[in-house]
Amino acid sequence: MTAERVSRPGSLLHVVIVGAGFGGLYAARTLAKHPVRITVVDRKNYHLFQPLLYQVATAALAPGEVAAPIRSILRKYPNVRVIMAEATAIDLERTCVVLADGALGYDYLMLATGASHSYFGHPEWEPLAPGLKTVEDALEIRRRILSAYEAAEREQDPERRRALLTFVVVGGGPTGVELAGAIAEIARQTLRNDFRLIDPAETRVVLVAALPRILPPYPEDLSKSAEQQLRALGVEVRTNAMVTNITPDAVHLGDELIPAHTTLWAAGVAASPLARSLGVPLDKNGRVAVELDLTLPGHPEVYVIGDLALFTHQSGKPLPGVAPVAVQQGKHAAENVWRTIEGLPRKPFRYVNRGSLATIGRAAAVADFGRVHLSGFIAWLMWLVVHIYNLIGFENRLVVLIRWAWAYFSYQRGSRLITGPPPRPELPR
Amino acid sequence: MTAERVSRPGSLLHVVIVGAGFGGLYAARTLAKHPVRITVVDRKNYHLFQPLLYQVATAALAPGEVAAPIRSILRKYPNVRVIMAEATAIDLERTCVVLADGALGYDYLMLATGASHSYFGHPEWEPLAPGLKTVEDALEIRRRILSAYEAAEREQDPERRRALLTFVVVGGGPTGVELAGAIAEIARQTLRNDFRLIDPAETRVVLVAALPRILPPYPEDLSKSAEQQLRALGVEVRTNAMVTNITPDAVHLGDELIPAHTTLWAAGVAASPLARSLGVPLDKNGRVAVELDLTLPGHPEVYVIGDLALFTHQSGKPLPGVAPVAVQQGKHAAENVWRTIEGLPRKPFRYVNRGSLATIGRAAAVADFGRVHLSGFIAWLMWLVVHIYNLIGFENRLVVLIRWAWAYFSYQRGSRLITGPPPRPELPR
Repeated sequence: MTAERVSRPGSLLHVVIVGAGFGGLYAARTLAKHPVRITVVDRKNYHLFQPLLYQVATAALAPGEVAAPIRSILRKYPNVRVIMAEATAIDLERTCVVLADGALGYDYLMLATGASHSYFGHPEWEPLAPGLKTVEDALEIRRRILSAYEAAEREQDPERRRALLTFVVVGGGPTGVELAGAIAEIARQTLRNDFRLIDPAETRVVLVAALPRILPPYPEDLSKSAEQQLRALGVEVRTNAMVTNITPDAVHLGDELIPAHTTLWAAGVAASPLARSLGVPLDKNGRVAVELDLTLPGHPEVYVIGDLALFTHQSGKPLPGVAPVAVQQGKHAAENVWRTIEGLPRKPFRYVNRGSLATIGRAAAVADFGRVHLSGFIAWLMWLVVHIYNLIGFENRLVVLIRWAWAYFSYQRGSRLITGPPPRPELPR
Repeated sequence: MTAERVSRPGSLLHVVIVGAGFGGLYAARTLAKHPVRITVVDRKNYHLFQPLLYQVATAALAPGEVAAPIRSILRKYPNVRVIMAEATAIDLERTCVVLADGALGYDYLMLATGASHSYFGHPEWEPLAPGLKTVEDALEIRRRILSAYEAAEREQDPERRRALLTFVVVGGGPTGVELAGAIAEIARQTLRNDFRLIDPAETRVVLVAALPRILPPYPEDLSKSAEQQLRALGVEVRTNAMVTNITPDAVHLGDELIPAHTTLWAAGVAASPLARSLGVPLDKNGRVAVELDLTLPGHPEVYVIGDLALFTHQSGKPLPGVAPVAVQQGKHAAENVWRTIEGLPRKPFRYVNRGSLATIGRAAAVADFGRVHLSGFIAWLMWLVVHIYNLIGFENRLVVLIRWAWAYFSYQRGSRLITGPPPRPELPR
């Protein structure tokens, strides 16, 4: 297959952006105002609003409500081309992106392919404890949670029934907290009157965190508050706990065994494997250490942004893998590309932290604004507003708002379907 | 595994309803008011509003918007139990439903398992031309339609690009008409400005109908009007055309070959295979001929309703496989069960036809109310109202209404995601 090198009208320079997450999308939007040709490459045809993906996994929202087609987001920029393709490697010498089925030459390159899960050297745990990064992941988690209740309703053996009604979430970060809180709410509210032989309120939700406290990047008082709010929802929080094994029937924490049929993984993060093809040293999470200006060392034409980048220049500690970092880096890298084209020097990146919000459940959240720490209803309301505001697409905002209002008053969830392939064979029945 | 025979509080009689489509659901709701124990068995955990499924296949709605969990629909009836299980056979002698993983005894049985596609003796066409009966079918069709445009944008060979932009819909009934109309609208409106190298308006949509006219159960003038409305949307309507072969690259109509990478099947219908286990004669579509009172001949304790039933007593011709027939039969069978328990004679069923509506596209539809025939905008508006009104769940009604209003004014579609497994190998790239 020949490399796709598009003709160059007016010899505009060609910027290739790989990955249309927060980093890639904001980079494309920023750069599109300038006279350059941009190609956005993504494996998927949609941009995913990852902060709300746990709501798809817990049956509150549909995938289409937290995603928008990349093409339609970028439709208004005639100088932006979008192609759905898998980038398999970067050839820095020949300045091209190698695709699964071709190649794509670039003048400037932005790598924004994000991260996936890491099972800390236990890849065999992956099918037993799915993580939450893609729409497919979310639908698989939803299928497992809802199927467990269906199987429990039919299970006559009380031990197996208890295991079916036990959910272990591994990982004390924001995703783990969100998932654990949402499962507890499904059990105690959404499914309350739906079953005849089991009582969903008997559901056991266990959040396993390796560190002494949950939400480690947050200040201690907010970690404590989050833990209290989770306990109030009925979640068992196990800190300082290391998962030593996962089987279809149980999670092992050292000598302790928790019989559980559904285990979800929200612990490790591994940067996209595309980074390996760069031939530069990576950190233990597979991230690329970038220069102050977000470029790849020795390659001022290549930018690495978002979860794929290891940026330690600001405080010595790496910036966290969250949406605001990716958005700011995307915009900044785009500006640096244009400055370079204009003959100006590149500017160093500086992350402006406008605060962090983590949600736990209905009217339960924590907010960290530096000196101001909030928790409970007010923090939750702020979380709602920020997430509705940042969602892409007016229609999605409106629909999500209605679904949330409806869920708040009815305690119901709008997307409670078990779809996809039949249950995995390890599950009873 | 032992048969599940639930204890009988107050020795209430046990009615098992297999299938929670329109027939089964309305039967359960009607019967639940009486002192009987009811068990509803379905393979899925949700009731699907099939008349809007084509909108999921064409990216307008999300699956959760046209489906509702069976448990939550029936939550308010304490005498109704719902189990998610696959019924594999009926044992009439031992009066039990054989499940994939157990058995379920009954005093009265209602079979409402509906129908699937028939490929007229060509099962090899199924992977090449998916039909539209389940949520999974709809998502597969959506994936194929949207993926074809993505592949076309990257295809350099003009012949293959043309084939990628050709969609053949086989079947001139309501589903075929809806799908063909919706694809034409996606091409000409939704995707208008989204691509750079292809013009989606060049899409060719071919509707292939075996009979001399489309929508055969409708009066001739409405068939003609529907054909005109489809042509106005840019659909090629081919009547009197028989599909003789389907390959990954083309559809054969006798000697004629239509190069097309996406073929959708909306032609044959085959009743659920569960009917075969009854040991009674079936018609060529696999349907069970029922008595005037909807019971199985020789088995007054067994009712067969909806698409699974062949009811010819009214006009000599079989009643059509549409939702209103299933709803009326479900209610009627439920009343007959209760009359039997009360010692009253069973009543004969009589279908009351309140009219038929078929939609074609934006402001395009036909309506048949016996002497009154409508088409165009008014028929379309009636179609909208009837479908919103009959949708189950207030939240779904509201969300679908917003999505439709949004789609009407913006020409956009809210659920344009390519999800699921990667493209089938036959597709180029």
